[in-house]
Amino acid sequence: VPAEAAVPRAQIAECVHTLTISNDHAAFQYGPAAGPTRLREWIAADHAVEVNRVVVGNGSVGLFDLFCRSTLRPGDQVLVEAPCYDRVLRLLRFYGANVRAVRLDDDGPLIDDLVSALEGRRPPVFFYMVPDFQNPSGATYSLDKRKIVVALARRHGFRLIEDAPYRKLRYHGQEQLSFLDLAADVTIHMNSFSKLLSPALRAAYLIADAETITRVAAAAEDTYLTPGNFALSVAAEWLRRGHLGPQIERLKNMYKPRLDSMIAAVAELQLGQPLVRPEGGFFVGVTLNAAVDEGTLHAQAKAAGVELVKGSGFFLEPPLKSFLRLPFCAVDEATARRIDGRVERP
Amino acid sequence: VPAEAAVPRAQIAECVHTLTISNDHAAFQYGPAAGPTRLREWIAADHAVEVNRVVVGNGSVGLFDLFCRSTLRPGDQVLVEAPCYDRVLRLLRFYGANVRAVRLDDDGPLIDDLVSALEGRRPPVFFYMVPDFQNPSGATYSLDKRKIVVALARRHGFRLIEDAPYRKLRYHGQEQLSFLDLAADVTIHMNSFSKLLSPALRAAYLIADAETITRVAAAAEDTYLTPGNFALSVAAEWLRRGHLGPQIERLKNMYKPRLDSMIAAVAELQLGQPLVRPEGGFFVGVTLNAAVDEGTLHAQAKAAGVELVKGSGFFLEPPLKSFLRLPFCAVDEATARRIDGRVERP
Repeated sequence: VPAEAAVPRAQIAECVHTLTISNDHAAFQYGPAAGPTRLREWIAADHAVEVNRVVVGNGSVGLFDLFCRSTLRPGDQVLVEAPCYDRVLRLLRFYGANVRAVRLDDDGPLIDDLVSALEGRRPPVFFYMVPDFQNPSGATYSLDKRKIVVALARRHGFRLIEDAPYRKLRYHGQEQLSFLDLAADVTIHMNSFSKLLSPALRAAYLIADAETITRVAAAAEDTYLTPGNFALSVAAEWLRRGHLGPQIERLKNMYKPRLDSMIAAVAELQLGQPLVRPEGGFFVGVTLNAAVDEGTLHAQAKAAGVELVKGSGFFLEPPLKSFLRLPFCAVDEATARRIDGRVERP
Repeated sequence: VPAEAAVPRAQIAECVHTLTISNDHAAFQYGPAAGPTRLREWIAADHAVEVNRVVVGNGSVGLFDLFCRSTLRPGDQVLVEAPCYDRVLRLLRFYGANVRAVRLDDDGPLIDDLVSALEGRRPPVFFYMVPDFQNPSGATYSLDKRKIVVALARRHGFRLIEDAPYRKLRYHGQEQLSFLDLAADVTIHMNSFSKLLSPALRAAYLIADAETITRVAAAAEDTYLTPGNFALSVAAEWLRRGHLGPQIERLKNMYKPRLDSMIAAVAELQLGQPLVRPEGGFFVGVTLNAAVDEGTLHAQAKAAGVELVKGSGFFLEPPLKSFLRLPFCAVDEATARRIDGRVERP
């Protein structure tokens, strides 16, 4: 979760005030299933795409659910990363997809894994990826690997789902081109303001071809008529006021030392090996040392008030070694140091 | 849709202000999949049920979707009213339910229809009803019919879905006991603040046995993690301040003359026969006179800026006579009179 201090509450209250005194009733009424027009327009301009290529909804998992609902049939082939965001695995299972996993290296997927997953089979419908500061590993795809993935998607005729909620939170190194930049023809880009503004507004979006957007919006209309227009209009007003840029700088200053402290704590505790030294985002993924018992660690964390997600939830098959996702953004440096003193050394 | 003047914008802004200056971060963060605790508690107290019997979500159609997702299997028997809320028919078809319709009279379902729908078949999983000021007909179930429906549900072992978003908006006559009052053991009660506060907050809830609530909340977590916590917390604060009672009185004063004008306009225009003289809610349902062509009427309405829902969408099978749902709440008396002058007499 984002840090509590990260949410600009006063700005949110000001945006609500502006909406309540305006003559525009859209923020208080039913509206288009694809989301408030002003928010779609802001996002379209930000990504330099047409408005009919944007749908706005309640959280990116919610939009991914609608995308799957309107796209997948039981038995469809789908590729994911290993480890993979656990919520996505659960949704793919619900829709009866035939899921195969491609192992991640510190610079993106293992190309041999990807190629062999594509051989001698119906092509997958899509490959779901978090290419920037991946959830849960923290890995970021190199430009070379992005280009190889695009070439394979074009050759085999499948779509690339680029889930990019952490992309703007880079604390070290250089930004890579997004899949949407590189290959809009095969990319479905998912994004969200949950990590940048507040998760409680549930402001998320999906960019795709206009036909896919129409299909997702139709599923939205059948499922909930209208997304959370009030909260989404608050987000639109906040963006219109130009708060996003300064907010991102503020978050980077807040989270960068937290990432560094978390990595230092993992090393000092000899918990295990980080899969990668993340350059941004929310997570450090760790392969636990053989001497660390996962169950004991979770119990100790729970006793200290920290709920950790079960490592095996990020994999299709139980991994050979125990995996731990450490979210660092809501853990300030003092707390990270306190964790040092609490957890028993293996 | 509700009238624009019906939304208490200034009160909403005040509630947001209170949330932003409080020490409680819940309104700005991820939260329980079943919705903000304070809102669940308010609703539980209002209905005199335990909190674990309440789930809060994004609009009642959204909650009904999650209920169906976690309950129905393809081929399950389901009963609906004829006419039936069109969105519900679409969802039931999506989940592959085997839907049968029970015709409505002006005091509730035709009991012969209901009995014959139950004979010689697997019992239905549920009977979906809008017992108060039904969408789209405006009909309200009499107490006698409510008791007969409850007896049949208990005898045949099916659930009653009571969708009650209009229940508190009674402009004439006497309130009837709800199905939740009469028979909590077989009732799943759906409700919403969309018609009472603002549809854009998407504040809706479902009351059922604790096991059903757990299942719906699990589906919510898998689908969207957390409902729109910010907007739902605004609704909770608005309710805590005691605004609901005075707001209902204000809405009754606003909508009662609109209902009366709409009924007068239907009579004066000789459009057709109202199925019932509604005592509350949002809709007058009309069986069009044979001389009125539905297509022409819809085209004329559209030219006048009014989007009407296709009458056949409220039925499983095309009805013998064309049906028209007239929502009157957003139509003030002056506009209702203007409609008189515009629509050509048949």
